[in-house]
Amino acid sequence: MERVSEATIRRMSSYYRRLGEMEQEQVKTVSSDLLAERNGVSPAQVRKDLSCFGNFGKRGWGYDVQELRERIRSILGLDRAWNTCLVGAGNLGQALFRYKEFKRQGFNIVAVLDSDSHKMGRTWGDAKISPLTDLKRIVCDANIEIGIVAVPAGSAQEVVDTLVSCGVRGILNFAPRQIQVPPGVVLRNVDLTMALEWITYSFTRK
Amino acid sequence: MERVSEATIRRMSSYYRRLGEMEQEQVKTVSSDLLAERNGVSPAQVRKDLSCFGNFGKRGWGYDVQELRERIRSILGLDRAWNTCLVGAGNLGQALFRYKEFKRQGFNIVAVLDSDSHKMGRTWGDAKISPLTDLKRIVCDANIEIGIVAVPAGSAQEVVDTLVSCGVRGILNFAPRQIQVPPGVVLRNVDLTMALEWITYSFTRK
Repeated sequence: MERVSEATIRRMSSYYRRLGEMEQEQVKTVSSDLLAERNGVSPAQVRKDLSCFGNFGKRGWGYDVQELRERIRSILGLDRAWNTCLVGAGNLGQALFRYKEFKRQGFNIVAVLDSDSHKMGRTWGDAKISPLTDLKRIVCDANIEIGIVAVPAGSAQEVVDTLVSCGVRGILNFAPRQIQVPPGVVLRNVDLTMALEWITYSFTRK
Repeated sequence: MERVSEATIRRMSSYYRRLGEMEQEQVKTVSSDLLAERNGVSPAQVRKDLSCFGNFGKRGWGYDVQELRERIRSILGLDRAWNTCLVGAGNLGQALFRYKEFKRQGFNIVAVLDSDSHKMGRTWGDAKISPLTDLKRIVCDANIEIGIVAVPAGSAQEVVDTLVSCGVRGILNFAPRQIQVPPGVVLRNVDLTMALEWITYSFTRK
C-alpha cells in the first residue's frame, strides 16, 4: 500500500463524519458526487482517496452508506476505544476533558496530570488530578496509548519527553512550540491560532 | 500571484513561529536548511513556499530572521489587530476566551455571546456575556470581523448564518458539522477529534 498523505486522512475523517450524518438522515446509498459535494471536494478526489484503501462501492450504484462508514471507521482505527491521558489541568485542559466528541469517537481521557501541586487531589468527573511524577505508573496501570498535552509552550518538550519515556506512542500537542519525538512516536500538533491565520491571510489577499 | 494552497499558509504560519523563537534566541540570520530543519520540511519546500510571495534572502547569505519574520507577519495579516466575537459560552468557549496565544497574535475576543438566558449578564474578564439577539449591534459597534463558533453541532449552522447576516466575513468553527457559507466568507473548521484520528490511523497502519 502506498504512503497515504495527511491530507487524505483528513478527508477520510471528513467523509466519516458526513457519512455519520447521512446515516442519521436514514440515507442508504450515496454517489461519489453527493459525498464529494457534502465534503467540498471533487468526485474524482473522493474516488482517489478511497482507492488508497481498496475497492469501495459499485460502478453506477454508489456506496452503501453504512458499509462505507464502517470501513472508514476501521481504517481510522476508530473501531476500538483508546485510553488517553491529559497533561495540563488548566483552562484548555479542562475544556478538552469535557469535550464530548472525544468520548463519542472512542477517546477516553482516563487520567489527568499536572505539575502544579495546588491542583493535586482535585477531581474532574471520575478523574483525579495526579502529579506528573505518577505518569509511569498511571500509563502502565491504565494502558494509556495517547497523551494529550495542554501545558504552556515552555514545558511542552519536557512533558512530551516524559510521556515518550513512559511508553506513550501517540502525542496530541496543543502547545505552540516545535516538539521533537523519536522515530516510532506519532506527534500531531494543534495550533488554534494557525486556523485564524488562514482567515486573516485570506482577508489580506483580497 | 498564483493561488496559494492552505498547506503553504500552514507552513508559513509555522515558519513565522520558528522565526519568533529564533529571534528570542538572538539568532540574526538563518539558512533555508536550518529553517527547514526546524519546521520538519525540506529546504526546497521552504524556498518554494517563500517564492510564492516574492524574493527573500540572498543566495549564500540566508535570510535575515527579523526581516523575514516581519514580512511573513504582514503576509499572514498579523501586522494589525483583529476584533473577534466568541459565540458559545460553554467549556470550550471559556478555554478559547482564556487562550493567551490569540491575544498574543493580535486576536482580541471583544464580545461573548450565547443563547442560554441563564448565562446572560455574567462577565468573563472584561467581556459580558450577551444574548445572540444583540449580535448585529455588537458586530457594528465593536467592528468585529471574525466570529469564533463554539456551540453544539446542532446549532452551528444557524449561528454561522446569523454571524454572516451581521456582516462577519471570517468564521472559525469548532462544531463538528459541515457548515455552509456564501461566497466571500472565509470559513475554517477546527475538529479536535480529527487530529487524534491521524494518530490512531498511524497506529493501525503499523
